[in-house]
Amino acid sequence: MKIYPIGVVRSNNQNSQKIEIFEDYSGGLKGIEDYKYVWVLYWFHKISKDKRKVLQVHPGGDFARPKRGVFTTRSPIRPNPIGLTRVKLLKREGNILIVQGLDAFEGSPVLDIKFF
Amino acid sequence: MKIYPIGVVRSNNQNSQKIEIFEDYSGGLKGIEDYKYVWVLYWFHKISKDKRKVLQVHPGGDFARPKRGVFTTRSPIRPNPIGLTRVKLLKREGNILIVQGLDAFEGSPVLDIKFF
Repeated sequence: MKIYPIGVVRSNNQNSQKIEIFEDYSGGLKGIEDYKYVWVLYWFHKISKDKRKVLQVHPGGDFARPKRGVFTTRSPIRPNPIGLTRVKLLKREGNILIVQGLDAFEGSPVLDIKFF
Repeated sequence: MKIYPIGVVRSNNQNSQKIEIFEDYSGGLKGIEDYKYVWVLYWFHKISKDKRKVLQVHPGGDFARPKRGVFTTRSPIRPNPIGLTRVKLLKREGNILIVQGLDAFEGSPVLDIKFF
């Protein structure tokens, strides 16, 4: 299956993160300013193809802890390197979302925004 | 970006759902039986390419309600048709997970299992 970025993480400071939703997808944001929290799906773009084959990791990268299956961890190392974080939506400025709590690197492709 | 199924939803009854994790990925389950709840990412495989272009929908399919952006809804109609559900893990039998609360059709490709 193919997935496409709908946006990108533009910056990540300690207190807030900036997500740009590409113009082609900005219609999908209609009404989002009504919500205080949303879920962001993004792509761990620094994970190589080889890393996607790794199925067990030391939790938290701590070698003192025995390896666990990647599906029991939040490790970015996983067959489909999709990240998921619930963030606080601080502000919407057109197709820019200012959020708090997003643990993604700058440049991470954004895949989806969900509300529950 | 390309994503690959790590498993498939084998059955969905009212009370429980059966997920098969493919043998190649079953190493990633090590330790999962310790958890009571996990998050399942899956692919809305009934959504056509054309539907992926739709950016606004009537919430809950209710035409009486004004259209909203898909990123403010749980609609399966979205640019990257990835579903996300928190499920109760009832039982693990090898590479089969019996869960409760998964709102996915039988045959849905499973993309990831996450723990928070």
